[in-house]
Amino acid sequence: MSIPTIVINRLPVYLRELLRLEAEGQSVTSSQELARRLGMSSAQIRKDLSHFGEFGKQGTGYRIDFLRQHLQKILKVEREWDVALIGAGDLGQAIAHNNSFAARGFRITCIFDSSSARIGTTIAKLVVQSTDLLEVTLREKNIRIGLLAIPAEHAQKVTDRLVKAGIVSILNYAPVNLSVPETVRVQYMDPVIQLQRMTYYHL
Amino acid sequence: MSIPTIVINRLPVYLRELLRLEAEGQSVTSSQELARRLGMSSAQIRKDLSHFGEFGKQGTGYRIDFLRQHLQKILKVEREWDVALIGAGDLGQAIAHNNSFAARGFRITCIFDSSSARIGTTIAKLVVQSTDLLEVTLREKNIRIGLLAIPAEHAQKVTDRLVKAGIVSILNYAPVNLSVPETVRVQYMDPVIQLQRMTYYHL
Repeated sequence: MSIPTIVINRLPVYLRELLRLEAEGQSVTSSQELARRLGMSSAQIRKDLSHFGEFGKQGTGYRIDFLRQHLQKILKVEREWDVALIGAGDLGQAIAHNNSFAARGFRITCIFDSSSARIGTTIAKLVVQSTDLLEVTLREKNIRIGLLAIPAEHAQKVTDRLVKAGIVSILNYAPVNLSVPETVRVQYMDPVIQLQRMTYYHL
Repeated sequence: MSIPTIVINRLPVYLRELLRLEAEGQSVTSSQELARRLGMSSAQIRKDLSHFGEFGKQGTGYRIDFLRQHLQKILKVEREWDVALIGAGDLGQAIAHNNSFAARGFRITCIFDSSSARIGTTIAKLVVQSTDLLEVTLREKNIRIGLLAIPAEHAQKVTDRLVKAGIVSILNYAPVNLSVPETVRVQYMDPVIQLQRMTYYHL
């Protein structure tokens, strides 16, 4: 039985909060505490987690390390993933310098750009490679995840190449929708879309 | 009758695609064409839009400029919004230099930071102000929207101050959940959360 996307989408948020609780030195939590911290209902959290088994006992709550490890396994982030960054402009550089990726299991191991001014420069200890080498490098390193930080007008073409080179997950920072085969997933990072989801509610 | 959040969340994506079609010189489109370009069903698009009135005629499709203007009105982005940026580190600087905000109706008009090394420096033609001036400046400029690009450990405290100063929409780049009153909305920009929403599906 396949689990609804909307449930899967909440699991990383639970995981982030559990890691935070652990960092604060706590070892046990409850659906009520998580709900309060995440601004949602405890019934929702219990229902979401029930898709994956029994994690807590009635009245005693969840052992944080146990639940955290389970979520990491479910999300397949108990391991490290190598990630390719495409685009070494302002945004690409900010992404490459963001320690959050490595700290949470996603290691940027190669950076590509098509501009001769950027190829050969070093960003976050990685030498920027020509996008001509995209397919060869991704296959060689067996990389499945790509971060796309290039202008919108080139995003689809590069996406087609990423898909052919074996990438199955794309985090797209370009403000444009991407067409991909059903076997490939895309998530979007478009701040303006996020802002417009809020202005609707402004009085 | 209130419209489901999930519908509202899709409207900016429709708007972005309509702007793209216009930029490509097209003046008419259809739910089928939009669906194909966005990788969703045309029935979904028609149903979403039907919440807001009749936009196309059976068989003749949508006039793009008409539908685009309507969506802009619905989302309250037919006007420009002034936005405050909090955080002038690597990420804040990349945000300040991202032309996408201004091009799509969100003008960053002030930048705040708490580090004395950054206060007084100029980023994207704006002088970085001390966070001590947060409340005064936001009230004076009547700013309702904040971009939060500061470390996770300070995000809640600054959020509480933003809310008190009249901010009702927060785009949070810090990898942490924020607690806000019901009258305030938060959207999140956490790339690792987005990646973990995809690794679940990896074989």
